[in-house]
Amino acid sequence: MPRPAPSAFPLTRLVRSSLPLQEQLYARIRSAIAKGQLRPGEKLPSARTMASALGVARGTVDMAFMRLAGEGYLLARGPAGTIVSPALSIDRPVARTVPARISESVEAASDARPFQMGLPALDLFPRALWARLTSRAAKQLAGPALSYPEILGLPELRTAIASYLAVSRGVSCSAAQIIVTGGYQSGLGLIAQALLSPGDPVWFEEPGYVFARQVLQAASAQPVPIPVDGQGMDVEAGFGAAPQARLAVVTPAHHSALGVALSLARRQRLLAWAASAGAWVVEDDYDGEFHYVGRKLPALKSLDAADRVIYAGSFSKTLFPGLRLGYLVVPRQLLPRFAETKSVTTRGEPTLGQKTVADFIVEGHFGRHLKRMRGLYAQRREALATALREVFGERLSMTVEPGGMHLLARFAGAASDVELVRRAARHGLSPTALSTQYLGRSRDSGLLLGFTNVVEERAPALARTLARAIG
Amino acid sequence: MPRPAPSAFPLTRLVRSSLPLQEQLYARIRSAIAKGQLRPGEKLPSARTMASALGVARGTVDMAFMRLAGEGYLLARGPAGTIVSPALSIDRPVARTVPARISESVEAASDARPFQMGLPALDLFPRALWARLTSRAAKQLAGPALSYPEILGLPELRTAIASYLAVSRGVSCSAAQIIVTGGYQSGLGLIAQALLSPGDPVWFEEPGYVFARQVLQAASAQPVPIPVDGQGMDVEAGFGAAPQARLAVVTPAHHSALGVALSLARRQRLLAWAASAGAWVVEDDYDGEFHYVGRKLPALKSLDAADRVIYAGSFSKTLFPGLRLGYLVVPRQLLPRFAETKSVTTRGEPTLGQKTVADFIVEGHFGRHLKRMRGLYAQRREALATALREVFGERLSMTVEPGGMHLLARFAGAASDVELVRRAARHGLSPTALSTQYLGRSRDSGLLLGFTNVVEERAPALARTLARAIG
Repeated sequence: MPRPAPSAFPLTRLVRSSLPLQEQLYARIRSAIAKGQLRPGEKLPSARTMASALGVARGTVDMAFMRLAGEGYLLARGPAGTIVSPALSIDRPVARTVPARISESVEAASDARPFQMGLPALDLFPRALWARLTSRAAKQLAGPALSYPEILGLPELRTAIASYLAVSRGVSCSAAQIIVTGGYQSGLGLIAQALLSPGDPVWFEEPGYVFARQVLQAASAQPVPIPVDGQGMDVEAGFGAAPQARLAVVTPAHHSALGVALSLARRQRLLAWAASAGAWVVEDDYDGEFHYVGRKLPALKSLDAADRVIYAGSFSKTLFPGLRLGYLVVPRQLLPRFAETKSVTTRGEPTLGQKTVADFIVEGHFGRHLKRMRGLYAQRREALATALREVFGERLSMTVEPGGMHLLARFAGAASDVELVRRAARHGLSPTALSTQYLGRSRDSGLLLGFTNVVEERAPALARTLARAIG
Repeated sequence: MPRPAPSAFPLTRLVRSSLPLQEQLYARIRSAIAKGQLRPGEKLPSARTMASALGVARGTVDMAFMRLAGEGYLLARGPAGTIVSPALSIDRPVARTVPARISESVEAASDARPFQMGLPALDLFPRALWARLTSRAAKQLAGPALSYPEILGLPELRTAIASYLAVSRGVSCSAAQIIVTGGYQSGLGLIAQALLSPGDPVWFEEPGYVFARQVLQAASAQPVPIPVDGQGMDVEAGFGAAPQARLAVVTPAHHSALGVALSLARRQRLLAWAASAGAWVVEDDYDGEFHYVGRKLPALKSLDAADRVIYAGSFSKTLFPGLRLGYLVVPRQLLPRFAETKSVTTRGEPTLGQKTVADFIVEGHFGRHLKRMRGLYAQRREALATALREVFGERLSMTVEPGGMHLLARFAGAASDVELVRRAARHGLSPTALSTQYLGRSRDSGLLLGFTNVVEERAPALARTLARAIG
């Protein structure tokens, strides 16, 4: 049976069914992109052409295009037409936070895509326990608990987070310093709104986490790329590039792309700079819990004698992303400003989710869950690393850092990492190209391979598929 | 028994108990404010004095102050000391959205305060049904549903909202035009971020909804007060004041303070202006469902042939505020811009709450609940109006508008409305002063009395208490 040409988007007519035409078209385009029939950067037929070929109204095509553009699949270029987002082999798989499908109405539910970054193991989340705690909390919702939540967060959750941080991340803070947010992105937005003025320079890891950079750019701040080497962000380079920066954003536990830890010496230099320059440091500790060799490092915040670090935690990696909850630990002197900023931007986070998380922590489930995931991720990481070494042999160069949620693999004599990602996508794999994590010209390349959802038994087959894909 | 002097804040020592000292102090100050022992504008003893008198560390007092400042109870004036927020008789009870307490750890749970504005009837929310749907949805959360939600909202919720709006608000839109938000404030923030540049003039109702104005100001937009009369916002005055405005924000169903509807002639003028000026109109339809005399008016959006209206709905009034969900209906041409803006500011809203609301709507509970609340609010409104007329007789001047969630009462020969609110607060009542809803110099005064939580049998007693309070 002949395989369809790689760029052949099926322009066969849509048929009226229980699924609206627009939904059908949406699903068809998305599926074509997922299968590699439509490739990043490829131009789509015009909406008019497509409407005519598919036998639907022009508006139907427009709506599907707009929805896909909104979700990052397509990019509208005005008169130049609509293309598949070039960032698809870049931003999207790169992101720790690729939105997954949740609606069975559009297409069949699927689990995390192989090698997708930034998701916890969705298959082994304690769903029944979580449902039980949620049900109990829902039954308790009454009177005032139905009303507006406290803006800074449910007091019992703030208390629970403060206790957890003291025990598990070496962070000593009061519950009053905890601000519950709708996740890291919202938290960073709050930080930017509270502290930054348009044009303010911000030290940002290069390579670095794309979504965080976008939040800063949306706030009209100016991320200044600071190189990352084997010891994490090169703080000395920051002094040279932007000594007057107002903020530095770092992932000290395991760098968001390279997986390296920020060395103790650099931690101290960073904190000393912040104290003397009157600057602030955002610690994005998204995966600090996931350390497999030796003891995990305490948070940067634990060294923060001068109270210059805003610690950002997320339940997206430690529980699940659909919860949309995270938190900040805010230096005391910034509390009034953050409280005021938060109160004019939101009316607080949903009560039920906050209550459920608080119960989950207080009743000891959280600690047990993290311990279990640590063990599981260590196994999955080892299984994938072993499988890759066996399949690729000498071609593979891979530094396995002691923690994190992905591996960084380089293949001798291979095409560019963006091209490798493109080829892998055609085989249903979703690795991320390291080169796309740079704001400036990329200086390194390789494949970032999320392992948290790679079941051990499947690791050899996935490694073989990857080998076939990248040739 | 002698009553304590009105301004006597109890400076008796705090005793170490299971409740941390800071929590105790926090609760004591808040309770003193609630009881009128500490009055809006009143200066508190210095933190040092208070720490010494209470026998606690200075830091403990600071933390309690900061928390209360963050929640809007106190205002730090630097060297001039800390005062009880003058806005307490202003912003806070004025707000449709006063945060209620949800933590039993801080103080006993209490229901809505008498006459508090902007809350649905918390006593008659179908809690058991809601808990059942939540439990069911929680049990179904698996695999991809645990992952990142779709940024614009759960597809089945967007579809359910579009169907509801068509039937109930006369709004014809596609599910693709619905963007699920974390409530009206977040939605308006999204609108501001997507459409406004610093300094952009925005028509804003005068008087108007304080929290919405704050969102615009936080986005560096410039709200231009446009007077409201018996026919709603005076659109002609807008032409004079700021013909080049980029946006107009209106509450056309029942004005957020005066309760009047925007007349049909003005609706048409407003839409024609928006179309010709290339401006956008935000329709805040927070209480459009609550209309008691005759048929409720269709939404302004239903007349919007030129697609210039961004419709904003909230589940805070139709379900409950602790849910933190609302939605926008976005004109088609703005969809890509809104989708992009939303994707850099949040990663979507929590899946569980969205699923529960979708089920609640689709299974017909939403329609029944709204109908039931409409009947209930009509009774509570009638009972309160009758009680006020009986108690105050000729002194009372009150226009009972055909819809809304509060009454506007004026009392002949009375003190200023701010003073009346202050007196009422001492009797545990929480009316809102109309004069505080103005951005410029207030031109009108009166008491706004939320009736949705006034149980019929209690209405006469509450009216008598109000009479005693205001003298």
